[in-house]
Amino acid sequence: MNGVQVVGGSNPLAPTIFMSMKTITIGLIGFGTIGKGVVKTLQANKELVETRIGAPIQLKWVADLDITSDRGVKVDPSVLTTDAMQVVNDPDVDVVIELIGGCGVAKHIILSALRNGKSVITANKALLAEHGNEIFSAVQAVNGMIAYEASVCGGIPVIKALREGLVANNIQSMYGIINGTANYILTKMTQDGISYEEALKQAQSLGYAEADPTLDVEGIDAAHKLLILGSLATGAIFEMRDIYIEGIRNITDKDIQYAAEFGYGVKLLGIYKQQAGSVELRVHPTLLPESHLLSSVMDAYNAVFITGDIVGHTMYYGRGAGELPTASAVVADLVDIGRSIANGKGRHNNEFTRDRSSVVVRDMNAIESRYYLRFSVIDIPGVLGQITGVLGKYRISISDVYQKERRKGEFVPLVMITHHAKEQGVRAALNEIDQLDVVKDKTLLIRMED
Amino acid sequence: MNGVQVVGGSNPLAPTIFMSMKTITIGLIGFGTIGKGVVKTLQANKELVETRIGAPIQLKWVADLDITSDRGVKVDPSVLTTDAMQVVNDPDVDVVIELIGGCGVAKHIILSALRNGKSVITANKALLAEHGNEIFSAVQAVNGMIAYEASVCGGIPVIKALREGLVANNIQSMYGIINGTANYILTKMTQDGISYEEALKQAQSLGYAEADPTLDVEGIDAAHKLLILGSLATGAIFEMRDIYIEGIRNITDKDIQYAAEFGYGVKLLGIYKQQAGSVELRVHPTLLPESHLLSSVMDAYNAVFITGDIVGHTMYYGRGAGELPTASAVVADLVDIGRSIANGKGRHNNEFTRDRSSVVVRDMNAIESRYYLRFSVIDIPGVLGQITGVLGKYRISISDVYQKERRKGEFVPLVMITHHAKEQGVRAALNEIDQLDVVKDKTLLIRMED
Repeated sequence: MNGVQVVGGSNPLAPTIFMSMKTITIGLIGFGTIGKGVVKTLQANKELVETRIGAPIQLKWVADLDITSDRGVKVDPSVLTTDAMQVVNDPDVDVVIELIGGCGVAKHIILSALRNGKSVITANKALLAEHGNEIFSAVQAVNGMIAYEASVCGGIPVIKALREGLVANNIQSMYGIINGTANYILTKMTQDGISYEEALKQAQSLGYAEADPTLDVEGIDAAHKLLILGSLATGAIFEMRDIYIEGIRNITDKDIQYAAEFGYGVKLLGIYKQQAGSVELRVHPTLLPESHLLSSVMDAYNAVFITGDIVGHTMYYGRGAGELPTASAVVADLVDIGRSIANGKGRHNNEFTRDRSSVVVRDMNAIESRYYLRFSVIDIPGVLGQITGVLGKYRISISDVYQKERRKGEFVPLVMITHHAKEQGVRAALNEIDQLDVVKDKTLLIRMED
Repeated sequence: MNGVQVVGGSNPLAPTIFMSMKTITIGLIGFGTIGKGVVKTLQANKELVETRIGAPIQLKWVADLDITSDRGVKVDPSVLTTDAMQVVNDPDVDVVIELIGGCGVAKHIILSALRNGKSVITANKALLAEHGNEIFSAVQAVNGMIAYEASVCGGIPVIKALREGLVANNIQSMYGIINGTANYILTKMTQDGISYEEALKQAQSLGYAEADPTLDVEGIDAAHKLLILGSLATGAIFEMRDIYIEGIRNITDKDIQYAAEFGYGVKLLGIYKQQAGSVELRVHPTLLPESHLLSSVMDAYNAVFITGDIVGHTMYYGRGAGELPTASAVVADLVDIGRSIANGKGRHNNEFTRDRSSVVVRDMNAIESRYYLRFSVIDIPGVLGQITGVLGKYRISISDVYQKERRKGEFVPLVMITHHAKEQGVRAALNEIDQLDVVKDKTLLIRMED
């Protein structure tokens, strides 16, 4: 509050009166899709951003190995550099925005920037998930600031909701559609009745899926995000090995049709539950009732359904990826951090106050769920009895059975929905069932949530 | 950061290390439903709240005219007082939480608290909507802090989303289900096919609606909230006269059935749109496609669908009222403000940076929409021609017509859906149509959104 600077506003904002003369100097590292979006946003809404920060901003550096390609956005050539460390070591730079991704150079850049007294903004979920402890320890060691809203669900301010909006709550559960690619594929399979392979091809042709879609369809990207959400909910930083991960590759269009017969849709969910002194962290395809709000989340959209002990159910929805949605979150972080800098104080990163060792992650075998089971059985009398016999032995009771295709003496799908059962028992039962002569392929299991 | 205080944690949190020795002292005024919820939350999750603030808290006062009724929550009798001004004038109190509602005493309390250098938290939407200018001017005059997350949509952190999470965006539109009572009534009418009157009675018996439901069903409460949301989106503080308000009393179960025939549901929406240099602010029943995410928001739940120029579509969902959901928002505000106090600095309320006079609110006559029109016409040949003749004169073109009930020579409903048309023309046409001999009652108009 040392001085007031008036900047003539073109509009729509009135002339900006800055509370601080301090200019917030930004070094952006990574001029790819998101980097481009951030530059566009800072250009398009510069006055808005400066008004909200209460100080002027300057984008001093844009670093990338490729600084010659035309990205459809105008940048003063003098800000371009191929040397990321030049940015990190520039004493003028207040905030380093890391948007190169991955766990190699990005980690070095972030740690160096923190050591150099700079605040850091990152969209790098893989890095936070794989090396969260190291990163957040470094933040604490230098009493620095890091912000990472863009790392989970792109433009949806869900980290802010968890850290601040729902801060009065013990988070009881979170169900997240946190991978847009998988949600797009499952949506197309559901709406158009096409196969997984066809839907994946469409997603690839639209740029929603990479040529190698492993990270998305195997649930790894979703696990990265669930790890961050779960850590925020608990206050302890989890590790990837804490998360059970199962992708969508085994889901067929038939499963989606059968699920619909029971009034359910299939979504890839990241699930966090806290109960009885332990937490569950799991990513897997899930049958959800069609009436559940998450079932209405279509295409590449993301949503997180969060239940707190005080607030009850809440949900946050929006685009989880893409140039501008992700830039929206990066720039929101910039405003948060910029306001702290302009006001001459650090923003206290106090979200992780618990030791990981104080939190028990429930073993997957110990969870309870209802299950959708698709058996591939030979269509002869007595088969149903054999299967329910094994299930009964493991105390798994059936709520519904569905068998549409009948071809006497041939292998046909038989679908069952169970009541609540222990995962361990279900797995043991399926192991036994899959050895039966009357059963052809490995039984498909999809967990259910209500 | 002058000292570190270690408090042994019972659990689930690890021992709390406070960054500040400063105790945040709270004076709560209004021990009704929400006040009770706040006390419960501060008791149940005290350690969590203190950890997130980074400082201990003390609830020093709970003021209410009635301090003898049993509210099912234990409070040390020494904190109870019937004298609100005692709280406001206590030099120990850092934060005054105003939960008495209304525009009389509450306003005096808030203004006095601010003048006494205290931070204020309020859930009072009516006060902020009716006297926002005065309140926010007072905040600015004393360089104070006010927080009001609980004033809109209870536990949903939508004000935080607008102010901070979406801060990089020009907000293009908002569609809000921001009155739980009206949404409950419309949900019951839709799902159970019951009349408005029956649904209202159910809402009243469940405590969702007051004995006098005017504020809710006439759209006034929704307008209060829309005013706050619109002011946040624009940066200028609106007044109630800027908002067009229409309630749900004229919607019949028949209208809901007819709308469903066209694939639409009926919701009471608060609508904000910014385009072509002006904004629209209106509350009215609205036909929304059944596939729209807002159409899946049922019962007393609230949701706000916000579109920004950078982030695209987002939505925020949860309980908009009630003891604990609202307390969740109040306590989130307490943590925000408490952190600022613990860190020895003010949180800059910089959300309203534009002058109201710089913003043009579009006259309702100038808006464009599609319309659902229900005429009450006599069932004789030529009637359709007469009506479409008048509509055509005002350049209103019809996209669909629906007439199910036919009783020759009697008055029956005739429903039309228009293409986009100017409100002014539609009103003029209906004025003319309603004078026709073949038309019995005033034509019902419901605007549509896609």
